[in-house]
Amino acid sequence: MDKKLMTIDLNSRILLEKAEKDGVETMYDRKIAMKSQCGFGLQGGCCRICGMGPCRITPKTPRGLCGADVHTIVGRNFARMCAGGTAAHSDHARDIAHTMALTSREGNYKIREEEKLIELAKDWGIETEGKDIYDIAHEAADVALMEFGKPYGTSIFLKNAPAKRQEIWKKLDIEPRAIDREIATVMHSTHIGCCADIDSLINLSLRTSMADGWQGSMIGTKFSDIMFGTPTPQQTEANLGVLEANQVNIILHGHEPSLSEMIVLATEDPELVALAKEMGAEGINISGMCCIGNEITMRHGIKIAGDFHQQELALVTGAVEAMIVDVQCIFPALSRVADCYHTKFITTSKKAKITGSIYMEFKEENAYQDALQIVREAVLNFKNRDKSRVLIPELKSSATVGYSVDAIIKQLDRVVNVEIDKQGTIKPLVDVIKSGTIRGVVGVVGCNNARVASNLAHTTIMKELIKNDILVITTGCGASAAAKFGLMKKSAAKKYAGKGLATVCELVDIPPVLHMGSCVDCSRILDVASAIANFVDMDISDLPLAGVAPEWMSEKAVAIGTYIVASGIDTYLGVMPPVGGSSRAVEILCGELEDQVGASFTVNENPEELAALIIADIEKKRVHFEKIYEEKLCEKADA
Amino acid sequence: MDKKLMTIDLNSRILLEKAEKDGVETMYDRKIAMKSQCGFGLQGGCCRICGMGPCRITPKTPRGLCGADVHTIVGRNFARMCAGGTAAHSDHARDIAHTMALTSREGNYKIREEEKLIELAKDWGIETEGKDIYDIAHEAADVALMEFGKPYGTSIFLKNAPAKRQEIWKKLDIEPRAIDREIATVMHSTHIGCCADIDSLINLSLRTSMADGWQGSMIGTKFSDIMFGTPTPQQTEANLGVLEANQVNIILHGHEPSLSEMIVLATEDPELVALAKEMGAEGINISGMCCIGNEITMRHGIKIAGDFHQQELALVTGAVEAMIVDVQCIFPALSRVADCYHTKFITTSKKAKITGSIYMEFKEENAYQDALQIVREAVLNFKNRDKSRVLIPELKSSATVGYSVDAIIKQLDRVVNVEIDKQGTIKPLVDVIKSGTIRGVVGVVGCNNARVASNLAHTTIMKELIKNDILVITTGCGASAAAKFGLMKKSAAKKYAGKGLATVCELVDIPPVLHMGSCVDCSRILDVASAIANFVDMDISDLPLAGVAPEWMSEKAVAIGTYIVASGIDTYLGVMPPVGGSSRAVEILCGELEDQVGASFTVNENPEELAALIIADIEKKRVHFEKIYEEKLCEKADA
Repeated sequence: MDKKLMTIDLNSRILLEKAEKDGVETMYDRKIAMKSQCGFGLQGGCCRICGMGPCRITPKTPRGLCGADVHTIVGRNFARMCAGGTAAHSDHARDIAHTMALTSREGNYKIREEEKLIELAKDWGIETEGKDIYDIAHEAADVALMEFGKPYGTSIFLKNAPAKRQEIWKKLDIEPRAIDREIATVMHSTHIGCCADIDSLINLSLRTSMADGWQGSMIGTKFSDIMFGTPTPQQTEANLGVLEANQVNIILHGHEPSLSEMIVLATEDPELVALAKEMGAEGINISGMCCIGNEITMRHGIKIAGDFHQQELALVTGAVEAMIVDVQCIFPALSRVADCYHTKFITTSKKAKITGSIYMEFKEENAYQDALQIVREAVLNFKNRDKSRVLIPELKSSATVGYSVDAIIKQLDRVVNVEIDKQGTIKPLVDVIKSGTIRGVVGVVGCNNARVASNLAHTTIMKELIKNDILVITTGCGASAAAKFGLMKKSAAKKYAGKGLATVCELVDIPPVLHMGSCVDCSRILDVASAIANFVDMDISDLPLAGVAPEWMSEKAVAIGTYIVASGIDTYLGVMPPVGGSSRAVEILCGELEDQVGASFTVNENPEELAALIIADIEKKRVHFEKIYEEKLCEKADA
Repeated sequence: MDKKLMTIDLNSRILLEKAEKDGVETMYDRKIAMKSQCGFGLQGGCCRICGMGPCRITPKTPRGLCGADVHTIVGRNFARMCAGGTAAHSDHARDIAHTMALTSREGNYKIREEEKLIELAKDWGIETEGKDIYDIAHEAADVALMEFGKPYGTSIFLKNAPAKRQEIWKKLDIEPRAIDREIATVMHSTHIGCCADIDSLINLSLRTSMADGWQGSMIGTKFSDIMFGTPTPQQTEANLGVLEANQVNIILHGHEPSLSEMIVLATEDPELVALAKEMGAEGINISGMCCIGNEITMRHGIKIAGDFHQQELALVTGAVEAMIVDVQCIFPALSRVADCYHTKFITTSKKAKITGSIYMEFKEENAYQDALQIVREAVLNFKNRDKSRVLIPELKSSATVGYSVDAIIKQLDRVVNVEIDKQGTIKPLVDVIKSGTIRGVVGVVGCNNARVASNLAHTTIMKELIKNDILVITTGCGASAAAKFGLMKKSAAKKYAGKGLATVCELVDIPPVLHMGSCVDCSRILDVASAIANFVDMDISDLPLAGVAPEWMSEKAVAIGTYIVASGIDTYLGVMPPVGGSSRAVEILCGELEDQVGASFTVNENPEELAALIIADIEKKRVHFEKIYEEKLCEKADA
């Protein structure tokens, strides 16, 4: 296998060559070495849940020792993936909620968006009149923290969904109760000798994933916006070319903005900037990778160093003084790569210690001081950089990012005729969807996966969609790919988009691919979908929407895909999840869910074919959407 | 492989023969068909946590795609096993707590042990003076339910442990916070790109398991005792010979007493008894399997039909009208076996639906009515029994069961000289341990595992221990084995026990192996250990105690073993857990934990050798124990 064909990123290709010269092993080498992967695992037909096993399902052994067939085994494994993903997003949100509880007027964490907090507090039944904003913040934190463990009741956010959707959830018993309870229940139900029914296991998977999308992730995103600011359009640049030859390069990698916001602040500390100059650097250059890159670019326009698959390659540049990480998607391999250069690989979270890293615990209670110390460590390391081993590839692309739902609505206001319509609504978007100028809206989300070429599926599918007048909204490493490949330039509309979409982009002044944030921000997609559905008084599943995870790899992505489907949005995957061993699982996930929740999964590992399927399905959905729309118009006329 | 050598239970052997004649497949057939099991899985060196994998660690591929080495992979898998086990026990306890919230004077669920509830309520800071007992119960339920999800603080039970033990937990940061949070945190920390440090992963595993033993399981046991009665010595019988040829045979299988207590009541309903007679039966014969068998035999002396490995064989008798199950350790295979006979296989829990079963949902809110309906289904099925296909094997053993901590103390009162000492304390036990008449106390717990001959290790080890004057306390399928093999007869002391233990058993009037309940009741072992340690003002790890899981198989057993070790009690396993792939994991679990928590794991798959190791270690512990004891005496004398 030619390593260079395993990524379409030209910077990555250059650095893969350098890695080879430097004798550094990367994920691409490990992928080649791994050769064939275990078929049982790929198909989901291997059970390791009890100590009598492992049991592998074959034609000669169609049942595990306990009698579990392949459907049960696949279902259990799938449910546990959803639980893992839900746990990751939600445990991140828990920390954000604890940070909210620490906010104070004089402290490190402040309320930046008072109005937004008050709106949320009112929605939650918190008395706000005449109350100090920080008291409101702490009460909101208490309510949010109880979402993780309340003994009674279901997610506080469900009521924001269209009424029809809520009925479906109730009927199917997939309204999530406390977030952690759903995770615990799935772990229990998948324990040996509990649930052995694929229909039921998938039902449990839906409910747990709903606790991710409609609960944990929503808390994470909304609280982050309130504390750190709701994203607004920002100019940024993306790809490893953002590293600076003459500056202290710090890369933030991971997921939780509580850390990154403080680190960003700390890099502006005059003493540290002076120290950097003392060390011979021109300044401190901070950039982000993976979802933390998305978080800080959305809020501050900080440059995106790269995506999940570039984390090792970033260090291979030899120009990174520190890679500072918190949780999720961090290669343990970074320890070894950092050892080959002068880079300090700094872990900060109790939840994610990594052997061989420098552990500098970050505590929210002492946030800024901790951040200063961590950045100092990086700055002091500049003197150890070996210039002869530095290679910063040149490529980088400019991008406009920062499209929160609020920001999108603000852009839409540009085309509102204020004499006829109100500003601040989703109506202009509905109008262009209804008229067909835009055919639909598709969320392209998720990771990079070594089973397919890095970035190929993301960019292929996005280009195909916008060419066909479908607006793309994106999060996570999908967003990084779009930024790197120029799809988030406003000029990309003219270059790649169909005529309808291009016109809309020009009028509204947006790129054809909108950066909506990190993976936890997929909850923004639910907000947009609900806003549109509520506006036209339909269910989400009636709208020409879709979700795609072309290169998904994490359990978080499995949970996201599952809650997107449960929300009524068809979801397309570019990598087959480990469910193929069970014909019944495939039947339900890729078919019968349609009858239950009005949406299902489609899998195709060929990006062009996958794009074609999405486009065709969006057109089918349009017919349905337009029909209902007309019916509603007639009803109104009759009334 | 000769199937009959895979179990030492003679009833099982007879029924295996019948199964073969009847063309019924059992676990033993599947074990033979499975032949060799996947070495990667057995060693823990296979990672399926993200969608880039599965990754298998070999000399040529020492790291997974993300760079995780075998230590990280083993650690992640181990931590998730602990999370699964903790989830199972605790989610069971959650249902019990919700049942407590439903108690009422006129309802199905009542408070049987008012004093015990008041004592617990006081311990939890609930005002009890002048309050209705049911108000106290509901407040206690609220407190317990918050243990699953409280945003702040640690387990409410930790303060009952010896002070030194509490210090160790604090220092190691393994005091469990909310139960479900610990499960979610482990699922998060083991997500791709989080924790990649075996020391840290094992530390997280300890904390999560602590949430099982010192939180979830304790709630389960204490609330069950309050509602259903604290076990007291009962006469019972055990093994499949308890089935009756001329009665409606109902077997309860699973774990939650909320269901079984109601079913037991319903079988006494005069109308249903009359209906049974109408159907041609002499009456209704109820018996229990697995842990539900333990629960109802401890409280009502109801007969034990058998253990985990006998669940299919019970149906092969052809004499079972209904197998009624709730959650955990239920073979999905029961559907197929039931199909071969007239047996109705009835599932009752939303959490554990099984394809091919008859689903009759049991709701605590409508408990007795639901139970009546389920039992009626069984009774009506008597007419379908094919007598020509019935074979009830004759073997059964009598047993004295029901040794809750309270019951043990009450037995000990028999030897208290009331002129010198108080009654109602653990002192007599301490005295005989101190004097060496009893060398120590060992908990023999856990499952049956198809990787070793059913019941062989349990019975071999128990016999060896009591022969060497070690008192055995037991729960779960270990307890079933002891009951079946006559070790819970009072006469067993004379037959099998050493002179010291036999004398104590005779004086105190107990068998040498004490049945302490179901697997969730391992929390009783923590109570006994704490009571002894507190009495002598030592840490638990100073005492001549040990835990053994000779035939463990479930994730629950992994969590139990881990919290037992974290509590300072050396734990011995008769089946190797999937951690062998990581030398570092083995080093920590079987060695370094000793320095951290004063206890560690020992694994040996030869029961005689394992018993010898335990006995030797107990003797070593005695030297330590006696030394501290003497020092404390001198201190007292000096003071």
